Amino acid sequence: MALMNKLDGYLNAYQMESIDELSTLVAQPSVSAHQQGLMECSKIIVEMLKKRSFEVQIFSNDVAPIIVAERKGKSDKTLLFYNHYDVQPAEPLDLWLSPPFEPIIRDGKLFGRGSSDNKGNITNRLFALDAFLTEEGELPCNIKFLLEGEEEVSSKHLEEFVSEHADLIQADACIVEFGGVDHTDIPVEYLGLRGICYVQLDVETANQDVHSGLGGSIFPNAAWRLVWALNLLKDQDEHICIPGFYEKVRKPSQRDRELMRKLPETANDYKTRYEIKIFLKGLTGGVDLRLAEVFEPTCTICGITSGYQGPGLKTVLPAKASAKIDFRLVPDQKPEDVLNQLRDYLDVNGFNDVTITYLGGEAPARTDPDDTFIQLVVDSATEVYGKPMQIMPMTGGSGPNYIVQQALQIPIATLGVGYPEGNAHAPNENIRLNDYIKAARHLVRVLDAFGRV
Amino acid sequence: MALMNKLDGYLNAYQMESIDELSTLVAQPSVSAHQQGLMECSKIIVEMLKKRSFEVQIFSNDVAPIIVAERKGKSDKTLLFYNHYDVQPAEPLDLWLSPPFEPIIRDGKLFGRGSSDNKGNITNRLFALDAFLTEEGELPCNIKFLLEGEEEVSSKHLEEFVSEHADLIQADACIVEFGGVDHTDIPVEYLGLRGICYVQLDVETANQDVHSGLGGSIFPNAAWRLVWALNLLKDQDEHICIPGFYEKVRKPSQRDRELMRKLPETANDYKTRYEIKIFLKGLTGGVDLRLAEVFEPTCTICGITSGYQGPGLKTVLPAKASAKIDFRLVPDQKPEDVLNQLRDYLDVNGFNDVTITYLGGEAPARTDPDDTFIQLVVDSATEVYGKPMQIMPMTGGSGPNYIVQQALQIPIATLGVGYPEGNAHAPNENIRLNDYIKAARHLVRVLDAFGRV
Repeated sequence: MALMNKLDGYLNAYQMESIDELSTLVAQPSVSAHQQGLMECSKIIVEMLKKRSFEVQIFSNDVAPIIVAERKGKSDKTLLFYNHYDVQPAEPLDLWLSPPFEPIIRDGKLFGRGSSDNKGNITNRLFALDAFLTEEGELPCNIKFLLEGEEEVSSKHLEEFVSEHADLIQADACIVEFGGVDHTDIPVEYLGLRGICYVQLDVETANQDVHSGLGGSIFPNAAWRLVWALNLLKDQDEHICIPGFYEKVRKPSQRDRELMRKLPETANDYKTRYEIKIFLKGLTGGVDLRLAEVFEPTCTICGITSGYQGPGLKTVLPAKASAKIDFRLVPDQKPEDVLNQLRDYLDVNGFNDVTITYLGGEAPARTDPDDTFIQLVVDSATEVYGKPMQIMPMTGGSGPNYIVQQALQIPIATLGVGYPEGNAHAPNENIRLNDYIKAARHLVRVLDAFGRV
Repeated sequence: MALMNKLDGYLNAYQMESIDELSTLVAQPSVSAHQQGLMECSKIIVEMLKKRSFEVQIFSNDVAPIIVAERKGKSDKTLLFYNHYDVQPAEPLDLWLSPPFEPIIRDGKLFGRGSSDNKGNITNRLFALDAFLTEEGELPCNIKFLLEGEEEVSSKHLEEFVSEHADLIQADACIVEFGGVDHTDIPVEYLGLRGICYVQLDVETANQDVHSGLGGSIFPNAAWRLVWALNLLKDQDEHICIPGFYEKVRKPSQRDRELMRKLPETANDYKTRYEIKIFLKGLTGGVDLRLAEVFEPTCTICGITSGYQGPGLKTVLPAKASAKIDFRLVPDQKPEDVLNQLRDYLDVNGFNDVTITYLGGEAPARTDPDDTFIQLVVDSATEVYGKPMQIMPMTGGSGPNYIVQQALQIPIATLGVGYPEGNAHAPNENIRLNDYIKAARHLVRVLDAFGRV
């Protein structure tokens, strides 16, 4: 306890220094979708690691370097942190109350793109390590970092890198990029990630937009072609109609249902926060809503664009139309299967004029809730939050967990600075400073316990 | 013939002065959809009319003034020109080879937004009048102008104005704003306009976009709601599914078919110009294609917007989606009927969450092909083009003809500077200088004959 008091004292005293470090990171735009500022951001990260005497290796590719860093600690055990320094695009810019890349503290929160996802977790890891280095002069265990700059665009280079450099990043356990508390302020241990298959559908019916008075009854209309093609993918009962799509879906187990049942009710919170009138499929709440949220695959239209979208009216027949579609996958679906099934389905239905561009994909992955490392992380929360972490056997998001899991065969935990109103991927992304210090207090306990196992 | 020689001589000598006048008009943006520059443009028009000693009356409203101008001529007959000084939005700007509001001559063509639709016709009318005023010192008949600045947004104030001021604009015949040659360089007399009912559909499912990993399987998605609602409107066989939609459709008569049969083939020209692979409904060309083009009502998606539309991928579930829909109507459909039918249909199918905003509408209108004024206009073309005008009993576009026709009960002819590659409503709008002088030569013959009837 004396050690924990010292570490907590450090964290209390130096929080704003760490928030300053985070602000530096947020102020550097690093939007992987636009290939903006990735190199610059990676350099800031490397400097931060070197400052802590990490041995840093930089692996360049044509998009954003992958960074591997290592520093030895007291015990022989090795913990791997996987994080990413890229962020989602900040658009729509007009909905931000302050500029996305000008971090600012308001009402006890730090606002800025990446403050939560995922730069806040990077500096928070470093903050926890700083506590040990300052108070103890050494780390409690070996620490490795694996950092990439393409997580928000489906980690294109990570799989090959990890399979080629498994030795370099080999560890006993891994903590991945995200995590945080739910709306009851209790942290959640997320033990699975859905996969993703993200595609863009494009239709082109002419070499230019045509006056709608001319072509309306005789020319193909790209927007109509797209609408009809999209309509084929999912019916109004939310059933995804692509043949074979559900074939490899593994239903949640009894243990999954049991864990999901213990989680708090989310229905009212969602309804209030997003002003949603009804849930899909007649769901009203309870364990069924929570199971549907994470154990079912999805087909989400993320965006559609075609023709005239300005104010008032313009009478054109659009020559081009496109949609971005995000399929979330559950074990044991695979993105490459979905891609093939989609192509076949469109072709069979006469939509071979709809081109499919694969923008990225990841397979789903899960970690055993009864693994000892997971129990350690879950229990270490009690001292900070008053309760152990809640265990969520699966979560709705996606990430490269399966890459790490496949190559290293180690348990993967989550722990981080997030909270439900953090607006990850949306305007006004933010973290609460209170969550920031709690996450660091939790992490120092995890590191201490892990080093002593 | 002596008179025509003099008038042609004038037109040959002063074409570039008239093109300069047109360039001044084009250089003044007047985008009614954006309420941009309308007042400024109306002032330029008024000056142009006053310069020709027209008595000008300006009727203000909250958008764009309606201008009525009159000058007496030799005969008692009165010809009314209906034109509009507003233009379509210039977007997408990146497809213009030169800025839309910086008129420029390239390859014998004047490029700029409004050069064809409809500013070119305004200055062309004035150019023909100038020939008479210069060579004869007077106009061959009374001339009235009715000019508005809201044609591209469905002439919202025109109907009320015309019904209240019918005396002021009363005339024996009218030439409306558009016209020109077809792809064989023979001018076309367009004797009908389809109506239009232009609506925007909007869906809002939440107060913000949501991370697609979170809400994909349980939150309503505005883009999906919109796709399903749109899909209800028209099936893949191009049948518009709104109950009652076809009820008042009058089929083309035998005389219509006969006139349509005389018109030149358009199929190959369309295929080449727009790089269209197939026509709708199995049409391949001939009179059937031409009949379908203008005698059938349409439901055209002019634009769709929802969610993320930038480069790469962004995993969001859109809270908002909207589409712009343009129904072209044929006699005796009415826009208000379609609006009601659409609302009922969406409601009956469970889409009362889709709001409909009526952006504008006009009823269809036709003029008798065997009217004596029409024959005069048609025959006057022979001396200029080597052939009389081709008669098209109906055309695909829309306009306020029915307003003039309803109030004044006079024949309405078209005559103008357009040609098929003029890109009206599209980037790189242009006219050919050759067409410009021919249209003026045609018009002076019409005026002369009309004054002598």
